[in-house]
Amino acid sequence: MTTTVACAQVALRVGDAAANLATTERAVDAAAEAGARVVVLPELANSGYVFADAGEAAALAEPLDGPAVTAWSAAARRHGLTLVAGLAERGDDGRLHNSAVLIDPAGELRAVYRKAHLFGTEKDVFTPGDAPPAVVDIPSVGRIGVMVCYDLEFTEWVRMAALAGTELLCAPVNWPLFPRPEGERPSEVVRVQANAAVNRMYVAACDRVGDERGVTWTGGSVITDPDGFPLAGHRPSDDPELLIATCDLAEARNKRLGAHNDVFTDRRTDLYGA
Amino acid sequence: MTTTVACAQVALRVGDAAANLATTERAVDAAAEAGARVVVLPELANSGYVFADAGEAAALAEPLDGPAVTAWSAAARRHGLTLVAGLAERGDDGRLHNSAVLIDPAGELRAVYRKAHLFGTEKDVFTPGDAPPAVVDIPSVGRIGVMVCYDLEFTEWVRMAALAGTELLCAPVNWPLFPRPEGERPSEVVRVQANAAVNRMYVAACDRVGDERGVTWTGGSVITDPDGFPLAGHRPSDDPELLIATCDLAEARNKRLGAHNDVFTDRRTDLYGA
Repeated sequence: MTTTVACAQVALRVGDAAANLATTERAVDAAAEAGARVVVLPELANSGYVFADAGEAAALAEPLDGPAVTAWSAAARRHGLTLVAGLAERGDDGRLHNSAVLIDPAGELRAVYRKAHLFGTEKDVFTPGDAPPAVVDIPSVGRIGVMVCYDLEFTEWVRMAALAGTELLCAPVNWPLFPRPEGERPSEVVRVQANAAVNRMYVAACDRVGDERGVTWTGGSVITDPDGFPLAGHRPSDDPELLIATCDLAEARNKRLGAHNDVFTDRRTDLYGA
Repeated sequence: MTTTVACAQVALRVGDAAANLATTERAVDAAAEAGARVVVLPELANSGYVFADAGEAAALAEPLDGPAVTAWSAAARRHGLTLVAGLAERGDDGRLHNSAVLIDPAGELRAVYRKAHLFGTEKDVFTPGDAPPAVVDIPSVGRIGVMVCYDLEFTEWVRMAALAGTELLCAPVNWPLFPRPEGERPSEVVRVQANAAVNRMYVAACDRVGDERGVTWTGGSVITDPDGFPLAGHRPSDDPELLIATCDLAEARNKRLGAHNDVFTDRRTDLYGA
């Protein structure tokens, strides 16, 4: 049984929550139209990323019963799909988190993951999460793991999600464009490929396009197979794009590598702990 | 201060120790001629890889005072360079190990690392090592880490070498050729790139070319910078090749990523241990 997975690489506008909500709803509709059963949206998809200051971030952050999650839940239910989306979240205690929500095909909010590794000036705005990557079973789809952007750079974190049985790791990201040598893939994409391969799982990372207050986004969304090869997103794009890939998530339950190896049981936990 | 690093991607002949020794000596001479101060040779460079049986492996394995290490030490001393080479090693207790030796510019054997993660039928022949990756300071060069081939697939192991201060990770490898999509780099190279980037260190992986008893080698040797981009070995080659890269190892002591981040201190050791 295969699952159609989509990354909706959209352009967002920092500060314009209504426009962002409309953009993400349209993107989910389009992904559903293309047959997607799992859809990933970018990091901070309700708010945009480059806040003028902490006050702007606070004004844009929403509780879990706010307009963004409410609309995304309705969209997931309407199409009967699983949605992973980045959310500027205001917690019950008033603290802000760079979160990702996982909503199931019934529209139920099944996980709220708060980014544990904060990048750049996020540290001035958000409180990092203290919980492991979210890993949720979705019946007739598979086991979905969730983390956010810079989290992917920490192999310990990715391994934790993989050891918890993640078959498809969904990561909302906002990758600022860094210079790279001619002909090279963005370094962030290479790391996604490696994360997939060493853990033999699928990874779907959904980036953004466009510019925001002097930051250009890489447009590097990618969906990789358990060998680490891209199924979609072979090259970055400056344009909004709907990436679609057909994934057999059962493949990611098999950690065998050839006739003699297994990337999990070959780990020398006697030498570096579980 | 920069260091010229070389990978000598040679063709070896399983079972022909004399030919292999001559090939590796010539390769070290050529690397020295090209200005290399650090030279990496492939895995099992004395013996070849695809043994007919354990008996052949035992006959080819050498002690640390055998012909291969003796000749490599002489070559390192003659040229005043650091040499990392894969060795089929027979230990004092008669056990065989898939090892890598690190020889300094004075010709001194500074480290013997025994591969901890064994691949394929290696398990029928070799006893895995129980010691961490070797990490050795070479004056006026820098801190060199050593591991072998499949070890690179285990992010915990690479992290261990990195946290021990490795500036240049030298990895003798023998990568069997696996199918890959058109236009894609070998998955093993992608993982080397990611290992370099997430730890902000240089990595030099030295592969082989040619065929051996039905196995084709990938010829995927690569030297990457701390951003994970190749400095040499952008594409695999079917031919013997001397890869040369100029590396500023001091760069690998700086784990900063932009103005606000540090890939080591950003680790959430409170959530996944040191």
